Amino acid sequence: MAKVLINGYGSIGKRVADAVSMQKDMEVIGVTKTRPNFEADMAVQKGYDLYSAVEGRESLFEEKGIDIQGNIFDIIEEADIVVDCAPGGIGKDNIENIYKKYNKKAIVQGGEKAPFVEDSFNSLWSYDRCYGKNIIRAVSCNTTGLCRTLYAINSTTDILKARVVLIRRGADPNDAKRGPINAIVPNPPTVPSHHGPDVGTVIPEFKDKIITSAIIVPTTLMHMHSLMVETTGTTKDDVIDAIEKTPRIFTVSAENGLDSTATIIEYARDIGRPRYDLWEIPVWEESVNVVDNEIFLMQAVHQESDVIPENIDCIRSMLKMEEDNIKSIEMTNKAMGILK
Amino acid sequence: MAKVLINGYGSIGKRVADAVSMQKDMEVIGVTKTRPNFEADMAVQKGYDLYSAVEGRESLFEEKGIDIQGNIFDIIEEADIVVDCAPGGIGKDNIENIYKKYNKKAIVQGGEKAPFVEDSFNSLWSYDRCYGKNIIRAVSCNTTGLCRTLYAINSTTDILKARVVLIRRGADPNDAKRGPINAIVPNPPTVPSHHGPDVGTVIPEFKDKIITSAIIVPTTLMHMHSLMVETTGTTKDDVIDAIEKTPRIFTVSAENGLDSTATIIEYARDIGRPRYDLWEIPVWEESVNVVDNEIFLMQAVHQESDVIPENIDCIRSMLKMEEDNIKSIEMTNKAMGILK
Repeated sequence: MAKVLINGYGSIGKRVADAVSMQKDMEVIGVTKTRPNFEADMAVQKGYDLYSAVEGRESLFEEKGIDIQGNIFDIIEEADIVVDCAPGGIGKDNIENIYKKYNKKAIVQGGEKAPFVEDSFNSLWSYDRCYGKNIIRAVSCNTTGLCRTLYAINSTTDILKARVVLIRRGADPNDAKRGPINAIVPNPPTVPSHHGPDVGTVIPEFKDKIITSAIIVPTTLMHMHSLMVETTGTTKDDVIDAIEKTPRIFTVSAENGLDSTATIIEYARDIGRPRYDLWEIPVWEESVNVVDNEIFLMQAVHQESDVIPENIDCIRSMLKMEEDNIKSIEMTNKAMGILK
Repeated sequence: MAKVLINGYGSIGKRVADAVSMQKDMEVIGVTKTRPNFEADMAVQKGYDLYSAVEGRESLFEEKGIDIQGNIFDIIEEADIVVDCAPGGIGKDNIENIYKKYNKKAIVQGGEKAPFVEDSFNSLWSYDRCYGKNIIRAVSCNTTGLCRTLYAINSTTDILKARVVLIRRGADPNDAKRGPINAIVPNPPTVPSHHGPDVGTVIPEFKDKIITSAIIVPTTLMHMHSLMVETTGTTKDDVIDAIEKTPRIFTVSAENGLDSTATIIEYARDIGRPRYDLWEIPVWEESVNVVDNEIFLMQAVHQESDVIPENIDCIRSMLKMEEDNIKSIEMTNKAMGILK
């Protein structure tokens, strides 16, 4: 059993902890929090051993009556790997100040920049490259979604150039402080956005083939991507077939009522997903079209959850627990209830 | 003085009426409403002669104490031209049942389909084609915005192919019934959307060169377009220069605080625009980029107002009041306070 420490029990951390717990070959040895909020309390209620992410703040938890086992330095030596789920930018500091110092393997999240890690992880594209490595980045929700779709497309034709416009959710559902409440924000206002190069860290051969622009809108549920992918030639049926054959991505139909991110999330709730998480990327079947060898399609990305199974596969790769990425994907999917 | 009848005093009609009133060479001889709501009352307060858009409904207005002069058939013979601002789809019926019967020139709005009219109007592209014609469509806000930008680009380079993703506002600010309140809606879920072909009705040579997809988001202020335009070659400076030289389109800078549709509208309010109308198309300077001869840029579209000056120019063209489109644009702009 691989011993996994979750550093930062927030939006991503709490989901990674639950996903690790579901696997047969790994276990959560502890989770950390900087503040004694409701999530810290929940971690203890769920049976996780809770540690202060910062040395000397244990008393803050005790004052709130939250059962705390110590701080991160009391548990880190027992870990085989740390999954860092700290807010963006903090992971970089943790690499230098904690993981390298204690000689621990660590996964940081997509909010960290590529130069601070050995490589960037996606289960389909870079499992083998990350095998046995020490400091790896599980890329962001948007990059993960794009990597899966590009994998499907790449399996049926050659990609010459990909243009993507990302329509991003303004804030997560639990975040009442961020906006916009009534605006469309070009963010970044520059084109291209950083998302294309980020895909390039996972798929180096696409580095100069993908160009992205990004826009933030007032919604909390999911992101949306409008893809325009020039290829050497394919058909709508071949693209749909490739999507169906690719793990963690499927088609939905607006005609069936799954006509927006709102009804997609309703579907995830209806099928009993924990926290309504949709780990897979839904692609609108109606939107798939091929014009002059160029594929057009629209897809949604559940920003809170699509990276979770990738974190699990990343643990297996870095700890050399399974050589074959498809076998790891199948193990993760089966344990979490991901259909394919 | 050209005598103009406004059929439908709603979001577009009330703005066209005010814009006509500002011109030296045309006047409003009446406006119509189907229902005696606050807009009908406002029309009378502003000094417009109000007529029932439907015969026999005059008493509904009288019951509400709104001064009504009769119905549309009591005034239509006096009009040189009717600007039809009825809701989408009604204009088509009005063409057959009213304007053709009374042998009246008429402009319908972008909610009507191209096959029902002689041609589609944009001040820059099709003023000459519509000159002296009888039934013309002033295209939609989105199509108008795209036509202006493509005109600017076309003035500095040759366009090989244009891809556009439209991020559309969910409802107008006064519309409390429509959504979405928290979703991103692929609408239509099919790609391409109808917007590309609609541009083709104005610019036939671009008919097969522009492909669009459209997405609705929860905001009321403006639409946003992300353009990707392949050309034979140009530079960022040349594109910005072309935008500055093209009427009714200008650049804004996120760095200056104009960083979303919300602050763009704040700007329109601050400069004292009636109803905060932004008749021009703002393009984010930071977003303008040229990569491999392909222009990338993001622009916003004020859906309630960018078509208003085009309606004025369209009147002059159809009534042969001015042969030169640039002179009409300058007259309209000067009268309305449009800077260029």
